[in-house]
Formats: sequence, C-alpha cells, structure tokens
Amino acid sequence: MGKGGNSSGVQGNVEEENMAAWLVGVNTLLLKPLTLPQLGPNDVKIRIKAVGICGTDVHFLKTMGVGAYAVKEPMVIGHECAGIVEEVGSDVRTLVPGDRVAVEPGVPCWQCRRCIEGRYNICPDSKNLASPPIHGCLANLIVHPASLCFKLPDSLTLEEGAVCEPLSVGVYGCRRANIGPHTKVLVMGAGPIGLVTMLAARAFGAPRIVMADVNADRLAAAKKLGATEVVLVTNKMEDLETEVELIKKAMGDDIDVSFDCAGFTKTMSTALTATRSGGRVCQMGMGEEVLSIPITDAVARREVDLTGVYRYKHTYPLCFELITSGKIDVKPLITHRFGFSQEQVDEAFKTSASGGQAIKVMFNL
Amino acid sequence: MGKGGNSSGVQGNVEEENMAAWLVGVNTLLLKPLTLPQLGPNDVKIRIKAVGICGTDVHFLKTMGVGAYAVKEPMVIGHECAGIVEEVGSDVRTLVPGDRVAVEPGVPCWQCRRCIEGRYNICPDSKNLASPPIHGCLANLIVHPASLCFKLPDSLTLEEGAVCEPLSVGVYGCRRANIGPHTKVLVMGAGPIGLVTMLAARAFGAPRIVMADVNADRLAAAKKLGATEVVLVTNKMEDLETEVELIKKAMGDDIDVSFDCAGFTKTMSTALTATRSGGRVCQMGMGEEVLSIPITDAVARREVDLTGVYRYKHTYPLCFELITSGKIDVKPLITHRFGFSQEQVDEAFKTSASGGQAIKVMFNL
Amino acid sequence: MGKGGNSSGVQGNVEEENMAAWLVGVNTLLLKPLTLPQLGPNDVKIRIKAVGICGTDVHFLKTMGVGAYAVKEPMVIGHECAGIVEEVGSDVRTLVPGDRVAVEPGVPCWQCRRCIEGRYNICPDSKNLASPPIHGCLANLIVHPASLCFKLPDSLTLEEGAVCEPLSVGVYGCRRANIGPHTKVLVMGAGPIGLVTMLAARAFGAPRIVMADVNADRLAAAKKLGATEVVLVTNKMEDLETEVELIKKAMGDDIDVSFDCAGFTKTMSTALTATRSGGRVCQMGMGEEVLSIPITDAVARREVDLTGVYRYKHTYPLCFELITSGKIDVKPLITHRFGFSQEQVDEAFKTSASGGQAIKVMFNL
Amino acid sequence: MGKGGNSSGVQGNVEEENMAAWLVGVNTLLLKPLTLPQLGPNDVKIRIKAVGICGTDVHFLKTMGVGAYAVKEPMVIGHECAGIVEEVGSDVRTLVPGDRVAVEPGVPCWQCRRCIEGRYNICPDSKNLASPPIHGCLANLIVHPASLCFKLPDSLTLEEGAVCEPLSVGVYGCRRANIGPHTKVLVMGAGPIGLVTMLAARAFGAPRIVMADVNADRLAAAKKLGATEVVLVTNKMEDLETEVELIKKAMGDDIDVSFDCAGFTKTMSTALTATRSGGRVCQMGMGEEVLSIPITDAVARREVDLTGVYRYKHTYPLCFELITSGKIDVKPLITHRFGFSQEQVDEAFKTSASGGQAIKVMFNL
Repeated sequence: MGKGGNSSGVQGNVEEENMAAWLVGVNTLLLKPLTLPQLGPNDVKIRIKAVGICGTDVHFLKTMGVGAYAVKEPMVIGHECAGIVEEVGSDVRTLVPGDRVAVEPGVPCWQCRRCIEGRYNICPDSKNLASPPIHGCLANLIVHPASLCFKLPDSLTLEEGAVCEPLSVGVYGCRRANIGPHTKVLVMGAGPIGLVTMLAARAFGAPRIVMADVNADRLAAAKKLGATEVVLVTNKMEDLETEVELIKKAMGDDIDVSFDCAGFTKTMSTALTATRSGGRVCQMGMGEEVLSIPITDAVARREVDLTGVYRYKHTYPLCFELITSGKIDVKPLITHRFGFSQEQVDEAFKTSASGGQAIKVMFNL
Repeated sequence: MGKGGNSSGVQGNVEEENMAAWLVGVNTLLLKPLTLPQLGPNDVKIRIKAVGICGTDVHFLKTMGVGAYAVKEPMVIGHECAGIVEEVGSDVRTLVPGDRVAVEPGVPCWQCRRCIEGRYNICPDSKNLASPPIHGCLANLIVHPASLCFKLPDSLTLEEGAVCEPLSVGVYGCRRANIGPHTKVLVMGAGPIGLVTMLAARAFGAPRIVMADVNADRLAAAKKLGATEVVLVTNKMEDLETEVELIKKAMGDDIDVSFDCAGFTKTMSTALTATRSGGRVCQMGMGEEVLSIPITDAVARREVDLTGVYRYKHTYPLCFELITSGKIDVKPLITHRFGFSQEQVDEAFKTSASGGQAIKVMFNL
Repeated sequence: MGKGGNSSGVQGNVEEENMAAWLVGVNTLLLKPLTLPQLGPNDVKIRIKAVGICGTDVHFLKTMGVGAYAVKEPMVIGHECAGIVEEVGSDVRTLVPGDRVAVEPGVPCWQCRRCIEGRYNICPDSKNLASPPIHGCLANLIVHPASLCFKLPDSLTLEEGAVCEPLSVGVYGCRRANIGPHTKVLVMGAGPIGLVTMLAARAFGAPRIVMADVNADRLAAAKKLGATEVVLVTNKMEDLETEVELIKKAMGDDIDVSFDCAGFTKTMSTALTATRSGGRVCQMGMGEEVLSIPITDAVARREVDLTGVYRYKHTYPLCFELITSGKIDVKPLITHRFGFSQEQVDEAFKTSASGGQAIKVMFNL
Repeated sequence: MGKGGNSSGVQGNVEEENMAAWLVGVNTLLLKPLTLPQLGPNDVKIRIKAVGICGTDVHFLKTMGVGAYAVKEPMVIGHECAGIVEEVGSDVRTLVPGDRVAVEPGVPCWQCRRCIEGRYNICPDSKNLASPPIHGCLANLIVHPASLCFKLPDSLTLEEGAVCEPLSVGVYGCRRANIGPHTKVLVMGAGPIGLVTMLAARAFGAPRIVMADVNADRLAAAKKLGATEVVLVTNKMEDLETEVELIKKAMGDDIDVSFDCAGFTKTMSTALTATRSGGRVCQMGMGEEVLSIPITDAVARREVDLTGVYRYKHTYPLCFELITSGKIDVKPLITHRFGFSQEQVDEAFKTSASGGQAIKVMFNL
C-alpha cells in the first residue's frame, strides 16, 4: 500500500465522517455527508464541537425560507458554532491546529461601501452560514476564513463559544443603542434574543430592565436570569394602553430605550408608545414584514428614533470579555443538549420548536 | 379727568387697535380684539408685521384640532411671524423698541430633563403660539419672551423673518439627518415643508435631491426652486415598486437620506424601500397617525434608521445666515399676500387651503 | 412689641446662627456670620449638613486663586454639599421643607447658546459656589435654586449626597468618553478625581482599568477601591517610555480611553503615548496651564482625540442611581470627618492638604 | 526565436521604459528603471499620467525622513497620481484597460480592528505609496489594488484626479469635524493643505472661513480662492494675543472649528485660544513633534476638543462629486507643470520647495 492509497483512504474517511444535517424539505432534516470546499490560503478547517439552534433555523425548517431567503437546493443548517481548528491555510498566522475557536458565521465582501465604512454586517454580498445557498455548520467539519474564527480563552467552553453568536446580537444592539447606566430599558419579547439583549443591557450598566412577553414561563426565566421586572402581556391590540401603563409602572421612571425582540405590530406599538420623548426603539425581531404602528406620535412628535439592529459586527472579543469577567453568564441559557445523530437532530429541533421551557438547544458533536 | 378715565381711555385704545384673528368654530375665523397679557420683566411687546399661514393653521381651521390638540375655547391663530419691538420688559438687555425681530413661537419650560439636555423642542410643557389653549400671533400685537425674538439683520425683510419659522423645520431636519456633500437626498412631498427641506438640504451641500409628489404643479415649482429631479407618484400602494425604481433611476446612485414630508403609509413605505442599507429616513409629515410600513426589511434587515424631526431648535441665527449669504432664497416661496381685514383673512385661508399654486400665503399687517 | 422688633429679633438670630467659613487671606479661613440673600420665588433655603473638601478649595486657600479666578474679597469656601430644605420660594413645587437634598453648585444662565444646546456646564456666565466672587457652602445655611437641589433617596446619606459633586466629574467624564464594556481605561492620577473616575468607569462597564500615580499609598487605595492594576510612575520625563511599556503590559491589551486626572506635561504625554490609535484622552486635571506634549504623533498621526471634561451636567440622578444600586460605593472615599468649628475647619484643611492617606475630608455640620 | 527570448525581450522593454524617480540621498532624485511587481489577481497596472508634489515628498527629499519614517534604501517618490489602466488582474471586475483612474495611495490590511471598524486610514499595517520602504508613483507604470483605483468621470482631467489625493485630506477633515452651515471656520496655514481644507469647508457649507498665515502671498492666493477673510500673523509667541483678537474680529462671530494646517506651537496655541467653548480644533499639520500648548484652559476648562485627521478614508467618490458639480474648483491650485525628465524633475522639486507662488506642482508624464 503506497502513499496514494493511504491518502485516498484518509480522503475517503474524511468524506465519510463529515456528516452534516441537510435541510431537504419542510420539516425534514437528513444527516448526509458533506464534501468540504478546498482550504484557501486564508481559511481554516474546523472540527465542529458545539452548535446551537436558532429560531431562524426552526423557521427555515418549517417553511424553507426566511424573509427574502428561500431554500431551493438542499442546504446544511446551523450557524451558531464553535470547534477545534484541524488545519490552517498557507497564509494563516493567527491560528494553529488545536486552537479552540468560536465562529462568526457571516463572511462579508470587505470591498463594498458598507464594508469600507465599517458596517460589514449590512454588506449586501455577505455570505452567511446557513443563509441559502450557503451551507451551515451543523456538520463535523467546516472550512471558514481564519479572520472570522476567534480563539477562545481557556476559561470559555466550546458551548459558550457557540452562544457568542446569539449573544452578539444583544451586545451589538446595546452598543448601537448606546446602553449605559443612564438608560432604563424595556425589552419586548423574552425569547432567546430578548434574553441575550437583557443580559447584555445589564452588562452595559442599564440600571433597570423591564421585560414583557405573552408567555409566563418565559417571563419567569427572564426574571431568574436578571430582568428587574417582568410584565405579562397579550397579543390583543385593545390591551395596549393598559399594558403600557403596567410597563411604565414596573419601570417607575422614563423608559429611555426599548428593544422589540419580537417584531409584531403589537410589540412595536407598545415599544413606541412606552418610550419617552427623545428615546430610542431598536427593532431586533422580525415577526411580521409590514407593521401598523403609531410612528406619527412617537417618531414625528416625540422624536423617538427607530434604530435597526441587523446581526452584529466586531462583537466576539467583547463577548469573550463579558463571559470571562462574569458580567454575563450564558450557561443558564443552555436548557437542552443533544448528540449528533439523525434521531437526536430530529428531537432537538422538535424541542427548540416547542418553545416551552427551551431557551437554547445545543448539539455536542 | 381722573387717572381712571385716562387709564381706561388708553386701555380702550389699546384693545381697540389690537385686533386678532380668532378661531371660533369650524371654518370660522373672526377678527376681534385681543387683550394682551402683562409684559413680564423678560418679555417684549411686538407689533406684528408679517404672518405666514401654515398647513397646521388650515388643519385647525377645518377640524378644530391637530393630533392630540383640540381647540375648545376661541383661540387666536397663527405662529409664523415677524414684527417690530414696541416695548421691552425691565430685565431685557438684548432688544430695544424699534428692533425688527423674527419670533420663535414655542416657549419651552427650560427646566425639564429634555430642556436641560438641549432638546427643548420636545419639552412636554412647551407653550406654543396657536397650540390650544395658547393664543397665536395673527394679531396686531403680541407679548413674547425676548430670548425667543431674534433681531433681523438689516438685509432681511420682515416677511423673510416670518418664513424662518417653516424654514427652521427644514434646517433642523437637515441638521438632525447630518446632511452634507456626502448625502444624496429624497424628499417625499413637495408642499411647503418638502420645499424648505429641499432648500435646506441644498444649502447643507446635498449633491442630488430627488422630490416626489402626487401633484405635478408642486413638482414643477420644486424643480424651479432647485430640486435635481422630480418624480410624479400616485397614492396607490400598487404603484410603489415601480415608483421606487423611478426614484432610484432619477437619483442614479444610492439614496442616503429620505425625508417623508407627507407622513402617509404610501410615502413612508416609499421612503423606507428606496433608502439604501444603513441610510436614514426622517419623518417630518404627519398625514396619518398609524402607518402600515415595511420596517422589518428596511429597519431590521438593512439598518435604515427612522429619525423624528419635531419642530426645530436653535435654528433662527442659522436661517438668517443662510438667507443673507444667498444660500437659500425664500422669496419665491411667498406666492400670495393679503392684508389684515376680515375679508382678506377669509380669502387668504381659502387660498392656502386650495393647495393649487399657493406655497406660502403671507399677511402684511 | 411691634412687628419691627420681632422681625429684627428673628433677623438677628438668623445672622447669628448662620456661621460660614470665610477665606480671608492665604492659608486663612475664619468662621464668621454670613447674611443670606433674599429667597427668590424659585429658590430654597438649605440647612447644610455635609460639606466635602475639594482640591480646588485647598488651592484657593493656599494661593487665593485658581486659573483665571482670583479671590479679591473675602469669600465663603466650599462647593460639595448636601443638607435639609428649611424654606422654599413661592414658586417651588418640587421640594418641601424637610427634604434632604444634594446641591449641584453651578448656576448656569440658561439663556446662552451653550445652555440652549444642553451644554450648561460650559456656560460662560455660570455662577458657581465658591468661584469668586460667589460665596460657597461651608456655612449653616445657603440659598440656592430649587432646580439644582436634588432630593436624596431615603437610602442615601447626606455625606453620600455631598460626594455626588466630585463623583459627578467622573460620571460625566465617562459619559463624554463613551465608556462601556468595550473600552479599556487608563487613569493617570489616583487622587480623588482619579478615584471617582475609576469608580465611574467600572460602573459604566469598563473591563480593565489601570491607574498610575507617583504615590504608592494612593495606588494602594486605588487597588483596594477597584482598579484592575496600578503602576507606580515618577514625574521625570526620561522615565516615560519605560512607564508606557509598564502601563501597556499592565493592561495586556489596547488602551482605548485614558483620563488624565493630573494635568501635567508628564501625565498627558504618558496618556497620549499609551492610548491606541483612534482612541481618546480626556483631560480632567488642571496641573499646569501650558503642556509640552507629543500631539503630532498621537493626534495628527494616530487620531487619538483629546476631549475636555469640565465640571459635569445632568449627573445627580445618575449618581443617586449608581450609589443606591450598589454599583458605586463612595463611603470608602470618606477618610476623615470634622465638625464645624474654627479649630476643626483649620484641622480639616490641613488634613486634606497633607495628601497622605486622606481621600475625601468631610465636614458634618 | 523561441518563447523564452521573446518573453525576455518584452520583459526587457518593459523594464527599460518604466522609468521612475528614485530618492537616493539627500536632495538627490535619480531617474532609473523600476521593475514592477507581479500583477496579482485583484491588481491593475496603471500608466501614470499626472503626479503632484506634496510637502511630504519635499521633506523626504530634504531629510530622507518624515516622522518615524526613514528612507534607508533608494525609494521611488510620489503619492498623488492618476493614470490609465493598462492591464487588469484576473479577478478584477470593476475596471478595464483604458479606464482613467485616480489612485488612492494607501493600501490598508483590511484585517485589523481599525480596518474592520471602518477606520482604515489608521491601519497600523497600511502600505502607502512612497512611505518607506514602499515605492511611490512618480514612474511610468505602477501596480496597485483595483479597489483603490477610482474611475474618473469623463468630465474630470487626469490632473484633477491626481489632486483628489490632497483634496481628500481637506474633505475628510471637514467630515471628521462635522463642518456645515452651522460652523464658522478658522484655518491656520495657507499652504496646499490649508487651501484644500478651505475649499472643502466652503463646499460643506461653512458660512465664514478665516485663514491665517505668515506669508502674505499665500494669503492673497487664499483670498482669491475663496477665504472670507485673511489675517497675516507672525511666528512670534508674543504676538499671539493680538492676533487672536484680529482673527476673532475678522470672523465677527464665534469660531466653531479651527483647522491647524501647520502644526506648530504657535499655530496650535492660536487655534486653541481662538476657538469658542465647546468647539473643536483639528490638527492636520505636522510641523513639530512636541507642542507647548495651553490645553488646560482650552480643553479642560472650555471643552474645546482636539481631533486628529490622518490622511483620509472613503473620499474619492465625494471628491469627484464636488469637482464635477463645480462646488470645488481645483484647477487654480495647479500653479506649475513639468515633464518627466531628470532635468524637469529636479526643477519641479526646486519649484515646489521654494514655496513662493507655487501651490501645487504637477508632473505630466
């Protein structure tokens, strides 16, 4: 047996072992091998060890699409991940095999006006893991640009590394909204994004954070994780006025910044109405495409600014800092864990979709 | 002849001559005397010489209300004015009788958090001329705080002084939107506010300004006054996509900032859709209270920020500068002039409400 | 006994009891009665209970001047204070006798461009307690505008109320420098202003704060109060390069923002050199008037911005919040306490000037 | 004749014809051939047609260094250029041979924190034309990344394209200082950078621009090019107070922003002293390394912020816009033209260094 055969055998083994979770149809994920692209000079090959399930993944699974993105060809799912570097491209100087890394999943073009301005998160040509037709990371191995793989401090687990992806949304939202000890914060929606936003707002110094949701279980979890007060709301528009009063009372002071982490007519209307003159509402949730909202009073009369928060940028080092310093504890967010088999994958997505007690469902590969 | 008689006589004369245009019912303005409040130590008494009619005045006249403001008691109308100082309070050091002044009509409390932060335009306790129950300025004489009366440079006419009020809205909008040579601007609506916003944007250096309106006459005026390109649109939602394409084509480049100077579902949807990722939409018009708008794509996916522009602050000196330097010419905005008699007042408001060729209708008192 | 006599008696008693510490010459403070100004409609009369000594007070005592301010007439000293409202003016609605208040000592004009813009701290006409010729607050009673007297939450002591004045400098500095979890901070100088800046930066989320001083005792206190690392430096320019290296090593990462709380050529040069490209240096200390500093490399080549921090604005409610929430503990800053007698006043200033272990020296009246 | 010989011949021809101006010693430039680097997939080869001389080039020629940059090996000089694309790399999609382009001479790493934040101008690893050891562009041909070559609009000449480099400094300075119709501007220094800053400030809407210089000829040119007022100053510190008064009088109002385009103790002291409280001074000139300046009064007491302006970023499209729209006319800046021979090169640099009437000295290749 010569080198060639050996190599061929390894190659075969690699392909065989690089199993991935393919989204092949509505509610259908199949574990099948994924052939990796060639390792470019600035890329690294990563053995994935932890992958979290995001609401977007569930949405893709249920409807084969999110917003303008439609899954037309089978696509590997997953974009919240961390793993261990297995091989580095010829020009990579920042990482070596064996390094544990968290993966920032969006790959911007670095050439367009937005990238050059430093707003790479809204690069129109960004290629993002598991945004069709780009494959995701729920697989044994992926290839990714080294500059978007951040070496984990020793004190961070790989699961915590994977959670840096959703946490980044909250951190970036707080940075964009300029959260600090001077800002009292309302968070509409106590799902995973609402929770990471609350955790980030606390770390940024927000003195009081009120959370509202239609689900009492979620609110209980939010209170336990650090919300100052929680308010149970409905999805009926006729309750809005009463609920705004309850929310204001729970805050006991001006609401300076509201994050709408749901993105519905009701939640955005509540946020706009509750926020003080000259304050700010950040839209992070994407529940509906067209919202019927009272912006004339809020925006045009009271100068409440409406600020968009899309993904995140340059957040991973800060997430590491916040977790290692103990300012944010993401461990309680991980409520369920699964292995990487066909059965476990099906079960995991079922758990995540059920919405009940599940916050973050994590795969350990 | 006692002191009383003398006083009574003087008092009578004053009352007789201080005629004012009272809004007493739907579509009913009556010229009647107005008793002035006492001149406080920091106030000036002004003989009003020029008053412009604003869309808000017309709206009050037609419906006895605007937004949350309802006219419950007869109220003197008018808030765009300039005049000549007739008397100054005991502590006034900045003005003397004979000074020609433009009047900033909103009187903030100077004590609340917003005032202290420098955002006095959103002071919740601001008392504004002709915002019920505060009387307006379509009268021979008014009393106003000296600090809100700005001495006109010799080169400015009293009419130009009165136009500084609506012009301030455009100037403040451009300041809040950070307009400069790097911003290409769309203005939705070519009414008076749309026009002053366009004029201000040009003065702030905007290299291309596209204006859209449903009225071809208004667009013709806009083009003449300096819009780079104009686009005729409809108020049908089904035309939106085509119109956005026309607008983008007219711009020939990214649209960085859009001003919605109309405030309807259609105009705001157009603005949000047409504006580039990471750009900004300013809401200045107040057409409807609740708007059904595609903010999820614009705000949450493309980080188009929605910014409120309410009235203005600290703009009068800048308006003077822009007019005296020739960067803005407001004279062509004044399309009609009327005297101050019952008949002329009725005629003037009819002209302003007709909307046809009228841009700014001005009273000379 | 008629009205006159009664009045005279009361007047006499008041004058007798309102003792104040007058600065009458270099190193000479005398306790003498102070006649209060008349209570205006928007003023309150406050019985002072706690007064802290500031470095500026000591400087005035030693030299009869600070910067452009010269003490030409005997002046009551002191500007950090809290007390109990004894009487309120006729228009005061926010306070009642018996309220415990912290006193913001600067009284801006509220009329100038800077005040109207919301930058009242740089109002050129501001009248500040103990800035000559305005009397200070080391007295039994003072009269002050109600809008600058902030009612203490029940959980705050009067001493903590008085400390809100120096704390405000640190809080405002952190707000102006946009301190947050993303900013690693260097503080040059571990005197009282350096310490409150460090405490504020921690509360604003700064993950690492390195402090440098020439005094090992001060550094020990700084470390105990919460500095991440401390570096002993000298006042010799030739040590600068080595010290910058030590400081960078202590930080272990980019220095994003430096506060120079000393204000000397050496400290500012160190701050400018140590701060990363695109970072910021805030000057808070006023050691020398003319500084010889390497701004060409720092500012013109590396875009380190130099930001001024003068006094503070709109900080008292935030200080209350930070103390009540436990994010900042100011109690350990108060190292010495004195009563209000001639002897105690002399002793207190001597202690404060000695600089050794004393951080904040407090009078209890 | 085989392939090898042919290739060798072509190669030889290319080398022969690509003459470049080498800085080989103090005051010594030699025309010698330059071998081009290989054309990378994202590069273009440009036939240089216009090169301007910058003060930095002259400084390099006189002293073999600027700041920390020392010329240790012979280096081709020149960094302000435009030319015609001759060949494009395999991945270049934005340019084709024959395109006329202006060349942005700094090549950032696009990977570091600063680049990712959008501040690529302060990238510590930037490779800039004619910053040793990188060769410059005073040559027949250069190779440069396509993304930094901006296609000239038809209406712009190649010389105007080359002038976009120094103009960019003024444009970026005005953007960084937020110049607009609300900012009255002082420019210290009427050399080329002072002039482009003035031209840019005008285009950004600055209503009044006062320029000061020690050279009456320069001031005459400045006035002709558009400065509102000019003030002749000296380089003696004892004249500072008088000159500040003259400058303030020439402005006739608050000075909101000052640009120091000289960078000396005297000019920076003048700028800091003349600028209003809460205003801004931008350092653009690099005259001395250590400046002795009154920052305690200006920065620490009056909150004048000191802002660095290093090179520029993302300015070329805006420069094109400003020139094509006629808002800026750069043609009068080009006072002298030379061809590309050893004699002409020597003469051109002599002319530029003489400083007299020369503003921009241009090579036509």
